[in-house]
Amino acid sequence: MRLRNKPWARSYMDARPHIVELDPRGQKGRWKELFGNDNPLHIEIGTGKGRFITEMAKANPEINYIGIERFESVIVKAVQKAGEEPPPNLRLIEADVKNIEHLFAQNEVDRLYLNFSDPWPKKRHAKRRLTNEWFLKWYALILKDHGEIHFKTDNQGLFEYSIESMTAFGYRLKNISLDLHNSEMTDNIMTEYEEKFSNKGMRIYRLEATLNW
Amino acid sequence: MRLRNKPWARSYMDARPHIVELDPRGQKGRWKELFGNDNPLHIEIGTGKGRFITEMAKANPEINYIGIERFESVIVKAVQKAGEEPPPNLRLIEADVKNIEHLFAQNEVDRLYLNFSDPWPKKRHAKRRLTNEWFLKWYALILKDHGEIHFKTDNQGLFEYSIESMTAFGYRLKNISLDLHNSEMTDNIMTEYEEKFSNKGMRIYRLEATLNW
Repeated sequence: MRLRNKPWARSYMDARPHIVELDPRGQKGRWKELFGNDNPLHIEIGTGKGRFITEMAKANPEINYIGIERFESVIVKAVQKAGEEPPPNLRLIEADVKNIEHLFAQNEVDRLYLNFSDPWPKKRHAKRRLTNEWFLKWYALILKDHGEIHFKTDNQGLFEYSIESMTAFGYRLKNISLDLHNSEMTDNIMTEYEEKFSNKGMRIYRLEATLNW
Repeated sequence: MRLRNKPWARSYMDARPHIVELDPRGQKGRWKELFGNDNPLHIEIGTGKGRFITEMAKANPEINYIGIERFESVIVKAVQKAGEEPPPNLRLIEADVKNIEHLFAQNEVDRLYLNFSDPWPKKRHAKRRLTNEWFLKWYALILKDHGEIHFKTDNQGLFEYSIESMTAFGYRLKNISLDLHNSEMTDNIMTEYEEKFSNKGMRIYRLEATLNW
């Protein structure tokens, strides 16, 4: 994604604390209190421009959503997308997933979405892939016992790598599709990126991973 | 595969006990003695016309190979393919995989190949798929601790099903390719079926599965 510096982004976000959580580390282990209910917590790592997480939040008011994005100039678009009356069950965070341990307590998260994560195709960059063993370890910690990772990508190499990495870690895989948009799964909400690449005829790969049943 | 009755098949095979093992149940737990060495044992379930297993046997004389095929009129082609001087490290068996427990003892097999198994696409036929839980249980029994299943197919649905079925059973997956003939794997020996479908531009999917590392 091309990044443009947006000098107005910081003040735009600071003025919207009802949708942008400005002190996410302060909420670790306390997200339920922030949302004011006991609903399940689903998070998306790499929220990008926010279409997926915003539509999910609107479609599922009984679930709390948090979108995490590391680039200020990108997440500000998600804040704009959420609108002036954002869904009350949605928060956006500007944070790097490397610091995920400071954002969520053990067993705090019910589901984790990875949508079209950077494939980092070079082998020497494998550690940066969001399905790398190091990240899987953190996901396993913050996810509840029956928590799930829902992962989709158009990148064949990243999908192959992720199956290996996840099963090596002990994850079971289910609801796999090797061609999501020509499959029977009907409730798919597309990301901006997904729509663009699917329209070009690229296959979308998808899986769900869980450590327990 | 179209099956034609071949009345000559039985006597043709009976005359070739050096390549067709006529009493495979009698060899259960004793295949090492039959081959006369301690080499690893690799088996292929659904050998078809035998190109894969015959080429593997010729390419790897330090490994013993057994090809299993349930249709007499099909395996006789594999016997023909093996030629009048078949590799000494190859045996062919006419048997149904349902009886696999009578063919191999626990921990007797080092590697198991499944190549282009019948996809049985209807849900009510799922139990017939060779990567069904029932078969995986038997494979786990006859495979050694670090034994592997090597599986390839052109059938997307069967591949998706197999990933789910295998990981549900606890298998780890590795060396996955979602497009084998456009991948970096160079030592692939093609089956007759594989060549035909790959030439039509169909993707070939491949994985390796193991219960231990």
